[in-house]
Amino acid sequence: MPQLAPHIFELLHQQGVQHSFGIPGDFALTLYDALAESEIEPIVMTHEPCAGFAADAYSRIRGLGLAVVTYGVGGLNMVNSIAGAYAEKSPLVILSGAPGVKERQYHDLLHHKVKTFDTQRRVYEEVTLYSTTLNDPRTADLKIHRALDYAMTFKRPVYLEIPRDLVYAEIEEVEHRPPPIKRTDANTLEEALTEILAMLERAKSPVILVGSEVHRFGLQSQVIALAEKLRVPVCSTILGKSVFPEAHPQYIGIYNGEAGAPYVRNTVEESDCLLMLGVFMTDVNLGMFTAHLNPSCAVYATSERVAIKHHEYPHIRFEDFINTLSNNCNLPHKNSSTIARMKPRVAPSPGKISMSGLLYELNQFIDSNTLLVTDVGDVLFAADDIQTREGSSFLTSGFYASMGFGIPGVIGAQLADPFRRAIALVGDGGFQMTGMELLTVKRLGLKPIIIVINNGAFATLRIMGHQDADFVKIASLDYAQLAFVLGGCGFEVQTGQELREALSLARERDTFSILDVRISADDVSPALQRLSALFAKKLKG
Amino acid sequence: MPQLAPHIFELLHQQGVQHSFGIPGDFALTLYDALAESEIEPIVMTHEPCAGFAADAYSRIRGLGLAVVTYGVGGLNMVNSIAGAYAEKSPLVILSGAPGVKERQYHDLLHHKVKTFDTQRRVYEEVTLYSTTLNDPRTADLKIHRALDYAMTFKRPVYLEIPRDLVYAEIEEVEHRPPPIKRTDANTLEEALTEILAMLERAKSPVILVGSEVHRFGLQSQVIALAEKLRVPVCSTILGKSVFPEAHPQYIGIYNGEAGAPYVRNTVEESDCLLMLGVFMTDVNLGMFTAHLNPSCAVYATSERVAIKHHEYPHIRFEDFINTLSNNCNLPHKNSSTIARMKPRVAPSPGKISMSGLLYELNQFIDSNTLLVTDVGDVLFAADDIQTREGSSFLTSGFYASMGFGIPGVIGAQLADPFRRAIALVGDGGFQMTGMELLTVKRLGLKPIIIVINNGAFATLRIMGHQDADFVKIASLDYAQLAFVLGGCGFEVQTGQELREALSLARERDTFSILDVRISADDVSPALQRLSALFAKKLKG
Repeated sequence: MPQLAPHIFELLHQQGVQHSFGIPGDFALTLYDALAESEIEPIVMTHEPCAGFAADAYSRIRGLGLAVVTYGVGGLNMVNSIAGAYAEKSPLVILSGAPGVKERQYHDLLHHKVKTFDTQRRVYEEVTLYSTTLNDPRTADLKIHRALDYAMTFKRPVYLEIPRDLVYAEIEEVEHRPPPIKRTDANTLEEALTEILAMLERAKSPVILVGSEVHRFGLQSQVIALAEKLRVPVCSTILGKSVFPEAHPQYIGIYNGEAGAPYVRNTVEESDCLLMLGVFMTDVNLGMFTAHLNPSCAVYATSERVAIKHHEYPHIRFEDFINTLSNNCNLPHKNSSTIARMKPRVAPSPGKISMSGLLYELNQFIDSNTLLVTDVGDVLFAADDIQTREGSSFLTSGFYASMGFGIPGVIGAQLADPFRRAIALVGDGGFQMTGMELLTVKRLGLKPIIIVINNGAFATLRIMGHQDADFVKIASLDYAQLAFVLGGCGFEVQTGQELREALSLARERDTFSILDVRISADDVSPALQRLSALFAKKLKG
Repeated sequence: MPQLAPHIFELLHQQGVQHSFGIPGDFALTLYDALAESEIEPIVMTHEPCAGFAADAYSRIRGLGLAVVTYGVGGLNMVNSIAGAYAEKSPLVILSGAPGVKERQYHDLLHHKVKTFDTQRRVYEEVTLYSTTLNDPRTADLKIHRALDYAMTFKRPVYLEIPRDLVYAEIEEVEHRPPPIKRTDANTLEEALTEILAMLERAKSPVILVGSEVHRFGLQSQVIALAEKLRVPVCSTILGKSVFPEAHPQYIGIYNGEAGAPYVRNTVEESDCLLMLGVFMTDVNLGMFTAHLNPSCAVYATSERVAIKHHEYPHIRFEDFINTLSNNCNLPHKNSSTIARMKPRVAPSPGKISMSGLLYELNQFIDSNTLLVTDVGDVLFAADDIQTREGSSFLTSGFYASMGFGIPGVIGAQLADPFRRAIALVGDGGFQMTGMELLTVKRLGLKPIIIVINNGAFATLRIMGHQDADFVKIASLDYAQLAFVLGGCGFEVQTGQELREALSLARERDTFSILDVRISADDVSPALQRLSALFAKKLKG
């Protein structure tokens, strides 16, 4: 009979999980023993919020991530990161050590306990799709398979709590029966397809808008094939950035409502047949609700809903929808030579570097080997004008928008994909939350390039009419000097030329590098400038 | 009519709250406007876990703490710290900004949202005594008073969520009626008192064991008076350390089961009348269940339960119990000159510094002006052999035991009590979690002395049979060098003499200092050595 924790690690390893992220603790000590004996390498982080972010980023590349933490002080310190993975549909397995089944009976006040022994599981119920305590060897296998099925099918985190006296318990194996999931009704799908093909045939200006679910469900190549057959312009949301390769000749840029480039906005909003594939209709994706999308011209498909114009087609699985559409669209629309790419709103900075100048240099530097992770704040809006090359080369917390994602995200991403060079673009606020995790970067011998926007402020709050508020200021720090103390290389950057030089030196370094880019607090990215102007207009009007 | 948020801040200020801890965000921007206009100073931290710890430490000195955060990414990132405050009965008010009532109706996918708009409140329900969203101006005042009453009466955190469109809403004031709380039954109290006085009269070796609730309910002077009338030895638990002044002639030391000093253990365990006042019966307080306390000789009183021997007296409030006992005990037991103080198990280190040598120097340095905060790990066990002077001069996360408490705790403590000099004793693991918060220390001009036990390992996990496990190692870092980058002073300490010198230099510095004390990974505090030996014996036997 298999043993509980070793069995879980074996199943996870079969799913492609080679690393776990977390911190041990006494209630998780035996669990870590089992982990260390497994095929999965435990990455010990400095702080649990970082462990959650790293596992999330890892999942976004590998398709599944793993965090292993201790009870109470460990698990409850990771709630925010897991909430982000839930909100943005990143499948994770969270394993938490816990007091033993026997201890729970005899001792009421064990350390790390809050209200009841069930407190942590109840908290996780709010931020995962499935949460349970594996407290019975007879039901454990069933629960483990259910958790994995849920994570893989719905792309959400699941939580398993393991009492420390059951880590090596022998468990009864059950026949693995996948839970009943939504199945596609063939007639519904055919009817939907017929309607879409008719729409496409009549359409003068069809456009594809790609969202993150295309990536979560591994449907990138099908969407590329679809776009190439239709020969139509393709754009993406912020959260779906780089799901469609940004270097593809049909790619025109990020759609971001009025905050985005007018050319993309017009192309999307004036389209008479907009195929929205795997798009979350969130405020961030819709330019903070400045989008003007006409449902009468739209096809909307996600894992939760397929709709054409104002009517819905239930009983269609997203994967089946995309596959069928991709296989059956054989009507090239117009010659792709007329498709123009959005021009990033950036320009070289001759003197002191600006956000625009920074993005210009970054775009020059990014190549097909780059894996870019951005934190949250102006660095998220800035991504509008960054051009990556290959598909799946951009990661961010683009809807849940949790600051601090950047540095731990780069660790997860770099371990999941060791063949590309990771770059993190982080604000000073985000850096101060989780930057200490560079100690783990150093320990692992990773070599990401960290670009810190050092402007001494929460720029996104400043532009909301709070230029002078003390509470939007961020403590100053010499990030370049800090880099050396943490075991990396530091570069202070004041001009575009210095940034160019620092990037090319950092590329050659055998450690991580921090580029401390001194940006004026009044200077923000083109997208945030645009939002700021809209905000000012709204305040006046 | 008063306005919602300004009204809350006014009530909190009346309770002695002069500082709040947190980070703004767009959903909390208006709330921060109201905060900045109030009498309370907003302290902007670098990371929400730190904001919760700082507010907790502040509360432990001032009697009430305040954290103000944004929705989702802010609130959910502070769950662990608030869970700790709940577990250790530290009263806090958590205010969270949130999407407006109107926004919630029209937009489903606002950023920072997890499952539903109620997710965060539901999570907080698990780690606070009372949680509610102030979404109606007609009921807001009632809920606000209820929250404050609960926090103050039961010494637990409470959570109020404030939709951003109601921050300045005019609210209807209600007549403030305190909720029905446990009232003392006079006959019950008299019967209990009579029984205790009879026990004391017969007793040959009565002892008082003081716990943290004596401090939470502000009953220190009553307990000191009681002890002086009875002339009996007094000791405390780890969590209750320094609630009774450690320099008091009747104080004998920390009771910690078999992990503690044998003299204290014998005094407590052989007592024929043990008065346990405000003691949590937790594993940490009881030397990881190595305590042997005989209920037949014990009086046990907390806010939750009053018991003598094996029977309980319900309907007695803790405050009334302590006051009555203190006022009515007029039977001096024996001459306090026979009371000997526990000798700390420490000695100067002639060569390379040891934990024992470190504690020796620290005890020499501590004076009546010292406010000591320890983190969790061996530094918590080490507190057994540290001697503070005045009452209420020691803070730690002694039951919930969350690493990372030290540095943010020192910020809350120092702001709550600016007249004493704060010292933090932290391990390298705890430092790496929250040490970046020294940027806030610098910004505020605070001058704590941070002593880092730099041993490159989770020492408490190592001693549990895991000396060689890779996953108990901590990344190396030059903490002294880091101090300068963060704006303070750093000292590398290899010997006892160097520690003595560094402490006296740090005392004169006008910034914070980090003392990077290089301890061998095999060397742990006397209390942890003792636990380690017990653990090894258990493994063998």
